[in-house]
Amino acid sequence: MTEQYLEDLAVAQVYRSGRVRVEKDQIIAFAAQFDPQPYHLDEQAARKSVFGELVASGWHTAALTMRLIADGGVRPAGGVLGVGFDDLSWPHPVRPGDELYAESEVIEVRPSRSRPDRGLIRVRTTTFNQNGKAVQIFTGNLLVPRRPADPGL
Amino acid sequence: MTEQYLEDLAVAQVYRSGRVRVEKDQIIAFAAQFDPQPYHLDEQAARKSVFGELVASGWHTAALTMRLIADGGVRPAGGVLGVGFDDLSWPHPVRPGDELYAESEVIEVRPSRSRPDRGLIRVRTTTFNQNGKAVQIFTGNLLVPRRPADPGL
Repeated sequence: MTEQYLEDLAVAQVYRSGRVRVEKDQIIAFAAQFDPQPYHLDEQAARKSVFGELVASGWHTAALTMRLIADGGVRPAGGVLGVGFDDLSWPHPVRPGDELYAESEVIEVRPSRSRPDRGLIRVRTTTFNQNGKAVQIFTGNLLVPRRPADPGL
Repeated sequence: MTEQYLEDLAVAQVYRSGRVRVEKDQIIAFAAQFDPQPYHLDEQAARKSVFGELVASGWHTAALTMRLIADGGVRPAGGVLGVGFDDLSWPHPVRPGDELYAESEVIEVRPSRSRPDRGLIRVRTTTFNQNGKAVQIFTGNLLVPRRPADPGL
């Protein structure tokens, strides 16, 4: 895949990722390590929770989305360098067996005022499940290098 | 630890977590699974990157922060139910050997208008390294149940 410089990116470009299937044992393993709450760890306990069933940690969804982006979303030269997010929400839970994919839309492109070799882009990434329901939405700010001058010119 | 209902939470309360040490092999394992970029995966390649050294994925820092909170931060009855974030930033990278802890400050408490059994709190959580540098800051919105009426009254 070609790496992108700031000059290659424009508002309204959309990048769609591949898909990843989320297995129950992965949900439980992630939760055991990072988010040990009953509705992420145990089907029995999850039934009695506000979710009514086992669901993935939102941070697991976030990490899986990063993987989808790294494998096939927007690909700035030098890496996907997130400096932060303006918002992040989980409108719908992720369940065992769900298949996720992400769509990233470029919503702003601007050169840095202080650093002529780089710029910032804002990207809204929505993660969908197999039924087209949004399970995560975030707007991220990424550092992107500008294309180096061609030394032959 | 006592679970908290909306009535137990007040603006300016601060919850400090325990500590977690971030090992190099954990940084690489997380990156291999979720954020396979050179500066998270490989020390040699990281030296040539914008970071100049191996650093943790921001999503790894986020997941570790969730673990710190789950183990000893704010603890609403029914679980730490994040519905989303207003912002999230990584002002400083996390390096192998860093020791992290989190401080969460309650910045808003409000009952739900539509659901009398619950409310929302806004919490600003800052994750610090062993030198007191902020490595992650986010403002999250959590669902918190109200204390059930005492049936004996």
